[in-house]
Amino acid sequence: MIESAQNIHIKELTLLLAKNNVRHKSGVFVVEGVQENASALKNGFVPKEFFICQKYFQYEIPQNIDIQFVSPKVYEKIAYRRTTEGIIGVYKIENADLQTFKPKHNSKIIVLEGVEKPGNLGAILRSCEAFGIDAVVATDCKTDFYNPNVIRSSVGCLFGMNFFSADNQTLFDFLQKNKFQIFTTFMNKESEAIQNIDFQRNSALVFGTEHSGLSDFWQTKGINFQIPMCGTIDSLNLSNAVAICCHQISKK
Amino acid sequence: MIESAQNIHIKELTLLLAKNNVRHKSGVFVVEGVQENASALKNGFVPKEFFICQKYFQYEIPQNIDIQFVSPKVYEKIAYRRTTEGIIGVYKIENADLQTFKPKHNSKIIVLEGVEKPGNLGAILRSCEAFGIDAVVATDCKTDFYNPNVIRSSVGCLFGMNFFSADNQTLFDFLQKNKFQIFTTFMNKESEAIQNIDFQRNSALVFGTEHSGLSDFWQTKGINFQIPMCGTIDSLNLSNAVAICCHQISKK
Repeated sequence: MIESAQNIHIKELTLLLAKNNVRHKSGVFVVEGVQENASALKNGFVPKEFFICQKYFQYEIPQNIDIQFVSPKVYEKIAYRRTTEGIIGVYKIENADLQTFKPKHNSKIIVLEGVEKPGNLGAILRSCEAFGIDAVVATDCKTDFYNPNVIRSSVGCLFGMNFFSADNQTLFDFLQKNKFQIFTTFMNKESEAIQNIDFQRNSALVFGTEHSGLSDFWQTKGINFQIPMCGTIDSLNLSNAVAICCHQISKK
Repeated sequence: MIESAQNIHIKELTLLLAKNNVRHKSGVFVVEGVQENASALKNGFVPKEFFICQKYFQYEIPQNIDIQFVSPKVYEKIAYRRTTEGIIGVYKIENADLQTFKPKHNSKIIVLEGVEKPGNLGAILRSCEAFGIDAVVATDCKTDFYNPNVIRSSVGCLFGMNFFSADNQTLFDFLQKNKFQIFTTFMNKESEAIQNIDFQRNSALVFGTEHSGLSDFWQTKGINFQIPMCGTIDSLNLSNAVAICCHQISKK
């Protein structure tokens, strides 16, 4: 049993948790929690090893896979949810290419340009899954889908979803080729209200960064729309705005 | 100019930022950013002092108020958004009593039982303001409205809102006295879908904690409703769920 945080396995894990570029280089990512690991396994992600603290882990120990048993003290150091569940998995990163996505009739895509906050991205994935959105595409993403906070905020539901990173132009070409209506979210009081829009055809809704909204790339690429509001502030939290849109378009 | 983070004013500020109980004891709270401070001042909050870094602060220096000028190095230490805006204000806490709130005709109240995450509470306040919700009440709150992360996530809009802390029973008595319909959010697939509910009368929507939902106190106190979903997960991020409800009830 590993009892020191100085152990080489623990040091590697800590780096994987903290650093995007370490994850990219090593091609693996980290999943904490029972529900999240179950979702990764169920959806075919390939585990490399598990860190298990038997004081907290109440389930059957996985077979045919490297397991590092760790002491409660070490587990509490590496885990985000300190005293719960007792399992952390390391899995191979799967970077699916957007071109492999084959939209069905009446598909819905949520596009996030330059999303910055992992917590927002995770909550957005959760809403998209809940409302049956067909794919989430991040362009110029400042975080990545395999960030531990993204996985945590999505409650692991991203593993069953279609999610892609792509540059704006590649995505735009894809949307045109597949006959998607594009809807943009520039701040503009003259835009059409979301509830008056017909989303029956293939539709992609494009959202900008938390800080500065959509870039000029999207300026003339789609139909602008808005969520009508009646208060004094002029914008919503990004994940809240996306959740309202997902709810709205899934009803039709 | 203060050039050391060991300065007594900076030490006090750091404690106010980090500790709920220090804020409660001293009766003051901290506001960072130009928009947020403008909102606090506009809505009658009483400033005690400002910390200003002239390298970053591009506006007129406030008059008739204690100002601590700080070096860029110190500012970057105390500020959340390190290199922007250059102003942090300290204000007197105003704890409004729920009984002072006089609901108008067709009022809407969002109730949050045991909300834990400051970022969620702030984003919820932002959505409530955007959709004209009349009041937000927190019961058994694990964070507080004056937490710096709440203020930041609300973009300072809470200062113009009716927000209250109360225990469940006091709130329930208030809702009954003021003839509110109560709507609860227990997980139950048999509940009425939100879009089929008439929210024309005074209505209070009650949400539970991120982790475990509503407590038994609310079990028989209202009409249960749901946001219909079609994915595999059974719940949304709390602030996303509240945002969808605010949007839905504000349209009617």
